[in-house]
Amino acid sequence: MPVTFRTVRRVEFGDTDMGGIVHFPNYFKYMEAAEHLFLESIGHPSHREGADGSVVAWPRVSASCDYSSPLRFADNVEITLSVRRRGEKSVTYDFAFDIGDRKIARGTVTAACIDASAGAPLKAIPIPAALARKLDGLA
Amino acid sequence: MPVTFRTVRRVEFGDTDMGGIVHFPNYFKYMEAAEHLFLESIGHPSHREGADGSVVAWPRVSASCDYSSPLRFADNVEITLSVRRRGEKSVTYDFAFDIGDRKIARGTVTAACIDASAGAPLKAIPIPAALARKLDGLA
Amino acid sequence: MPVTFRTVRRVEFGDTDMGGIVHFPNYFKYMEAAEHLFLESIGHPSHREGADGSVVAWPRVSASCDYSSPLRFADNVEITLSVRRRGEKSVTYDFAFDIGDRKIARGTVTAACIDASAGAPLKAIPIPAALARKLDGLA
Amino acid sequence: MPVTFRTVRRVEFGDTDMGGIVHFPNYFKYMEAAEHLFLESIGHPSHREGADGSVVAWPRVSASCDYSSPLRFADNVEITLSVRRRGEKSVTYDFAFDIGDRKIARGTVTAACIDASAGAPLKAIPIPAALARKLDGLA
Repeated sequence: MPVTFRTVRRVEFGDTDMGGIVHFPNYFKYMEAAEHLFLESIGHPSHREGADGSVVAWPRVSASCDYSSPLRFADNVEITLSVRRRGEKSVTYDFAFDIGDRKIARGTVTAACIDASAGAPLKAIPIPAALARKLDGLA
Repeated sequence: MPVTFRTVRRVEFGDTDMGGIVHFPNYFKYMEAAEHLFLESIGHPSHREGADGSVVAWPRVSASCDYSSPLRFADNVEITLSVRRRGEKSVTYDFAFDIGDRKIARGTVTAACIDASAGAPLKAIPIPAALARKLDGLA
Repeated sequence: MPVTFRTVRRVEFGDTDMGGIVHFPNYFKYMEAAEHLFLESIGHPSHREGADGSVVAWPRVSASCDYSSPLRFADNVEITLSVRRRGEKSVTYDFAFDIGDRKIARGTVTAACIDASAGAPLKAIPIPAALARKLDGLA
Repeated sequence: MPVTFRTVRRVEFGDTDMGGIVHFPNYFKYMEAAEHLFLESIGHPSHREGADGSVVAWPRVSASCDYSSPLRFADNVEITLSVRRRGEKSVTYDFAFDIGDRKIARGTVTAACIDASAGAPLKAIPIPAALARKLDGLA
């Protein structure tokens, strides 16, 4: 069973475009915000010191989204994150956007793990062991 | 030979994030803006009356991006759009982001054609013939 | 005593810029979102039918912000809205951004009331009586 | 005569909201982008080494905008920046947004000068002399 995390987000007026629906790049902002809440929920917040003393950040390697049904202002959309694959130096997440039974969108993001301590070089590092165990659902 | 279109975009300060690089959803804004300039260049601007009197718009079906090298404030990035596939009711574009020889990112967007005239229902329609010919490189 | 409303907002990564702090236009997004939550809390949501059957929206007439101390990623900022002045066809709100005792920013927005029913002209209308009474703290 | 600078900007689809017009916080992005082009035009780009070797940045102290007439997708808006006041450690700019004879908006931004060299503290510094002279129209 993959590790999952669920959050609900309310669409703000500024997220919409003149088509009357959420502007499509904003789904990627929603995914990232859900990912950050997830990482914080397991004690390893992005860009801040985690439970094991490490400071990691997650620049994106790739991102994609399939749009099924539009989101509108004031909608409350459920966002479900699942850890699809935990690599040595990266993580791939799947995201499901739903409003009740209505499927809104499906997205996927792969992010590389970097050391975000001051002065560290911008290169992928092995995911710290304590965090890797949590992403694997073992802790 | 697919139809292509090239534009250069300057990265603005507001496009960056605290990582010091362009926030990844903004690549999708850049793709959309390039697509709109392309459609305008062939006489069929999005959301406005085209050369053949039709008014079309292009809600997204899917969007993806692979990130190779970061973009920074004040970078001038070349964006090359190519029509990968012209369907009956949709178009798929590829986008290459480059700075000279440095590969920045590669993206793909599929958009459905809708009638954007006032009062028209929100459903995909066949791409108007004059526009289809241009997307096919036949006009 | 002016009518007030308080909400807490968490700063997202995408709200920051390469300076490491929240990009200044985003304070205006925060103000607008607080205003919409306030209007909803009194039964007159923007752009949707309110308790009295009217559908109103609030294009901005003016907006300003004084910045005292920066907001950073993951900060939880308290936003306090106060109705400074309820005019016949417009409202002026003051906004205070604070984190505990630390003053972050102070903003002001004036918005005109328009009829947002389909087909209505884009011009200011008198604020519906039931809503005006609530903005005045009389209901 | 105050120093002025003019640029033209095309409204992008992603700048609009469901009201069909440019979302009001984006005017502040437009002002900032015009300011950065201006500073570059006089040889003192923000966040990068200028002609005199200094690296300065300009966090905002205050920002305001009065909205007269809406901007729409694909509009080409002229933005005129004027140096209203050059202080010892800050600058105040006025911005006029116009489309031909149609007045769109008027804005004002005050920004503090900081040393943006790596490791410099985040505090206002006197504007470098060469830059100050240009802001004063003396060079």
